[in-house]
Amino acid sequence: MTTVASPSSPDHVTTGPIMGSVKVWSSPEGHADIRVPFREIALDPSANEPPVRVYDTSGPYTDPNIHIDVRQGLRPVRAPWIVTRGLPAVRPRAVRPEDNGFAKGENLVPACPAPHVVHEGRAGQMVTQYEFARAGVITQEMIYAAHRENLGRATMVDGAEDRRADGEDFGADIPAFVTPEFVRSEIAAGRAILPANINHPELEPMVIGRNFLVKVNANIGNSAVTSSVAEEVEKMVWSIRWGADTVMDLSTGRNIHNIRDWILRNAPVPIGTVPLYQALEKVGGVPEDLTWDIFRDTLIEQAEQGVDYFTIHAGVRLQHVPLTVNRVTGIVSRGGSIMAGWCLHHHRESFLYEHFEEICDIMRRYDVSFSLGDGLRPGSIADANDAAQFAELETLGELTRVAWAKGCQVMIEGPGHVPMHKIKVNVEKQLRECGEAPFYTLGPLTTDIAPGYDHITSGIGAAMIGWFGTAMLCYVTPKEHLGLPDRNDVKVGVVTYRIAAHAADLAKGHPAAQIRDDAISRARFDFRWNDQFKLSLDPDTACSYHDETLPREAHKNAHFCSMCGPKFCSMRISHDLKANAERMAGLEQKKEEFRSHGNRLYVPVDEAATPAE
Amino acid sequence: MTTVASPSSPDHVTTGPIMGSVKVWSSPEGHADIRVPFREIALDPSANEPPVRVYDTSGPYTDPNIHIDVRQGLRPVRAPWIVTRGLPAVRPRAVRPEDNGFAKGENLVPACPAPHVVHEGRAGQMVTQYEFARAGVITQEMIYAAHRENLGRATMVDGAEDRRADGEDFGADIPAFVTPEFVRSEIAAGRAILPANINHPELEPMVIGRNFLVKVNANIGNSAVTSSVAEEVEKMVWSIRWGADTVMDLSTGRNIHNIRDWILRNAPVPIGTVPLYQALEKVGGVPEDLTWDIFRDTLIEQAEQGVDYFTIHAGVRLQHVPLTVNRVTGIVSRGGSIMAGWCLHHHRESFLYEHFEEICDIMRRYDVSFSLGDGLRPGSIADANDAAQFAELETLGELTRVAWAKGCQVMIEGPGHVPMHKIKVNVEKQLRECGEAPFYTLGPLTTDIAPGYDHITSGIGAAMIGWFGTAMLCYVTPKEHLGLPDRNDVKVGVVTYRIAAHAADLAKGHPAAQIRDDAISRARFDFRWNDQFKLSLDPDTACSYHDETLPREAHKNAHFCSMCGPKFCSMRISHDLKANAERMAGLEQKKEEFRSHGNRLYVPVDEAATPAE
Repeated sequence: MTTVASPSSPDHVTTGPIMGSVKVWSSPEGHADIRVPFREIALDPSANEPPVRVYDTSGPYTDPNIHIDVRQGLRPVRAPWIVTRGLPAVRPRAVRPEDNGFAKGENLVPACPAPHVVHEGRAGQMVTQYEFARAGVITQEMIYAAHRENLGRATMVDGAEDRRADGEDFGADIPAFVTPEFVRSEIAAGRAILPANINHPELEPMVIGRNFLVKVNANIGNSAVTSSVAEEVEKMVWSIRWGADTVMDLSTGRNIHNIRDWILRNAPVPIGTVPLYQALEKVGGVPEDLTWDIFRDTLIEQAEQGVDYFTIHAGVRLQHVPLTVNRVTGIVSRGGSIMAGWCLHHHRESFLYEHFEEICDIMRRYDVSFSLGDGLRPGSIADANDAAQFAELETLGELTRVAWAKGCQVMIEGPGHVPMHKIKVNVEKQLRECGEAPFYTLGPLTTDIAPGYDHITSGIGAAMIGWFGTAMLCYVTPKEHLGLPDRNDVKVGVVTYRIAAHAADLAKGHPAAQIRDDAISRARFDFRWNDQFKLSLDPDTACSYHDETLPREAHKNAHFCSMCGPKFCSMRISHDLKANAERMAGLEQKKEEFRSHGNRLYVPVDEAATPAE
Repeated sequence: MTTVASPSSPDHVTTGPIMGSVKVWSSPEGHADIRVPFREIALDPSANEPPVRVYDTSGPYTDPNIHIDVRQGLRPVRAPWIVTRGLPAVRPRAVRPEDNGFAKGENLVPACPAPHVVHEGRAGQMVTQYEFARAGVITQEMIYAAHRENLGRATMVDGAEDRRADGEDFGADIPAFVTPEFVRSEIAAGRAILPANINHPELEPMVIGRNFLVKVNANIGNSAVTSSVAEEVEKMVWSIRWGADTVMDLSTGRNIHNIRDWILRNAPVPIGTVPLYQALEKVGGVPEDLTWDIFRDTLIEQAEQGVDYFTIHAGVRLQHVPLTVNRVTGIVSRGGSIMAGWCLHHHRESFLYEHFEEICDIMRRYDVSFSLGDGLRPGSIADANDAAQFAELETLGELTRVAWAKGCQVMIEGPGHVPMHKIKVNVEKQLRECGEAPFYTLGPLTTDIAPGYDHITSGIGAAMIGWFGTAMLCYVTPKEHLGLPDRNDVKVGVVTYRIAAHAADLAKGHPAAQIRDDAISRARFDFRWNDQFKLSLDPDTACSYHDETLPREAHKNAHFCSMCGPKFCSMRISHDLKANAERMAGLEQKKEEFRSHGNRLYVPVDEAATPAE
């Protein structure tokens, strides 16, 4: 891993391959124009195994053959597809001083110079992946995402059926092999979304749904003092390097419009935002001063930039607010508390709820997917699954049907803080109320008592809720409840959530999931240390931990490790057992003797003389 | 936290209170002679709440009023109780050169000078907690452990019944209040053990069982080069400081006899060992040279020292070995591979299995509890729940009944590497095969692909298996599979497993578990930052993470935090909502209006004029 300067930029983003893997681009049969990224891990020749292909979220940044220049942005791979859809280019809304918090002069972060043509769908025109799917049209994005889900394999993987049968998927229906038609049908059914704003051509398409690999989202936000735009871009690049499938930009304060521009032009993953945050900035941070017009204008502003999904807290209704009064931790969602504050102050229904159909019309024009926010999610074990949370969830179900009728893609946000025994009902109720729209949860945290370790308290809940049917897991870092995550916190948070997502894929019986586990386990048993590092989620950490105790290169081939040393190495002894396979045959006969012995538990010492005697 | 020198020792162990808590000693009503330790966390006066009492494993080391001198050892609190049982003192087995690996001169770690009288039970005499329990006798240890389980509360906690009803305990039967009689009945039924060697008088008794708080074990081992005995004692002290309920000493190599002596004389928690390891050392590390006589002698050696439980791999039978040949990772348990190697070499049944009744007779004499080892546990997702694993488990069930018949206490060790969907059946089968004897599992790890993060891959499995009914969880550190854990790895491993155990207690509906979650959540909502730190599992880390972003003391009372800042603080807005409680009443009326409005989703803009207009 190296961080290199891009010539035309004074700043740095992390580029270069992930330790032990090579970036490969693979085209689905008959689609040379579609190049899907993977990481390929070549194993030691002694393994006599093919390279292991793994899902790759890291974008062009890990391809040494691609020149990165954050000022130019990434190559707009989707541009030709979008053009063929005849979506007209429009003159974008003019940037206003309030979009950047009235930042001026040297305080104003310059706009990203990367070229950006804004498109917009017309009424009656098919724009969203949902509309295409409903019309039976398979888009290039669907073909791309399908190929990705199969980890590049062109056909059904060996034993796929067995693995599916072996797992417990709680009513999900994961196919042995993902076809573009399957992606289409899942999107058409509302069970999956393919977040892809027509104004985000740099996107490498991916699909979010219960019948696909479980995905992970990482949140980033601008620093109070932004020393450089690349520093903000780097947060996104760093998150996807370790496995974030989507990134939410939760920036507040000055320059958010321009920073978002830099992020989007350089983002190969879907970018999500909470437009309410910027709208609030525009009214000086006073919730009651929010208006529909300001919010509406902010939606268009961000949709034209290319944001792929919006968190919309339209489920926080006036009538729900009283339900939160006796909670232990009240309302812990920023968006939820802002809207509850607005409703309370004006004593009227939420403008998001009242104008929901107009919101749909705007988001459909650009194919911005809905992430219906859970503004009333529980912030403590005590408040889990309470009346306020479930009342909002029922409203989200109502809104989901409206958004679908308007041609929009929808996923649903979920809790929060939930003890293990109350997690499953959250998924069951969400699937029922929201017509199986993809569930997107934060954690949940399974206890409140471990600040500093909430990536773990929530990783437990995330693995379980992913297994039960949640499509995407929003990460939590060790700094949750305490402070702002630094670079290392972000990495630990992402890796922890990749663990949760993968554990869920294994338990659901995803046909390709266990390939990697088996490969690393064989490497472990064969003492192929470097292969073990290369196949792990975080090769750098695995290798450095090993080297702390056994630094020398020679030990990379040692047939033991520092835990037991050669004398006590169970795997080494196991190898001797295996080597004596033919003697094993003899054991069968021995077994017979013992059976004939009546399998007596206690054999008098004279009979059971020890070899020493 | 400070590390102080004990005058008569050149070395250091960590002493001093855990941040924000005070050590208290509480006596059960009518038992002034029994003083049970707790930590009491006093909250900010503004909270107007009583102090929160938490379970305390840390021993006298966190009591500033107790002078620690590792040469003198801890006060033998159980000595008077043991004396009243009329267990004769005996001349201990003479220490032999091989006990310390023939270490000589300056290479020989001196024996611990702390006084130690060795006792031993006679035939026909009641010795074990199981024998007393079966005879209907409530021992002081049972009274002590019962008081501990209730977190010092003298009566049933408010809402205990509600919490039990709220949880899902999968057939466990956790009482609203733990009485000494309940502890006795659980031990008598074999559903719980109270590991307490009569030669470990320094022990603070605790109980392990499905109907009690879920416990955590930490493993320690001597360094290749031991610079001091206190360094070895410190590993134990450090583990229990952060919440290890028991500690296993897995030391190998030289000086293990004397180091074990130092650990036991200074250990307030049950100490477990794997006698097979020392026996193997005595035969130069050659498994096939092991003999029953050497093993038997080692059992007596360690039992006299006061080891509270032995891992005995008697379930690895000759006939099981062939079942492991086609595994991806063979045999990954050291003890399992040693015994399989022995069986294979000699082509005969395991001497542990053949001599099991004699092993029981020895362990009963000192009340050493059995931890029946899972020598064939799976070492990879691929090998989970296979024929070898379950064949051994069935044998362990057979051995459990033999040990009970012999008057011994028994718990059963479990896996290993198991995907989430295969965890529950492990508990169900163990409970069925082993007559509900306590289950004691390592993890399980829910995926193989994250070396460097296996405290997390296994913490997920540990929380789940604890919820399903496992009584004690053996920790896994971040160094698992890679190297030897350092001081920080041990702390992270223990805290991670405290999280898993507590999440399990919450989900099972343990009546007292949620008290701490509620207290910390109220502190969070009230912005009592210091209370939040003090109530957390690791106050030092929580506080330091907070201070990284908001260092000033003033911020400890700030009504916001670094994540959102004052403008965006959802909890702050929530407080305004609460403050407007009476206006809430008005909302009810508003709700009626909207209902009368027909709850229409879409309200035309003219009707829904925004306040700005």
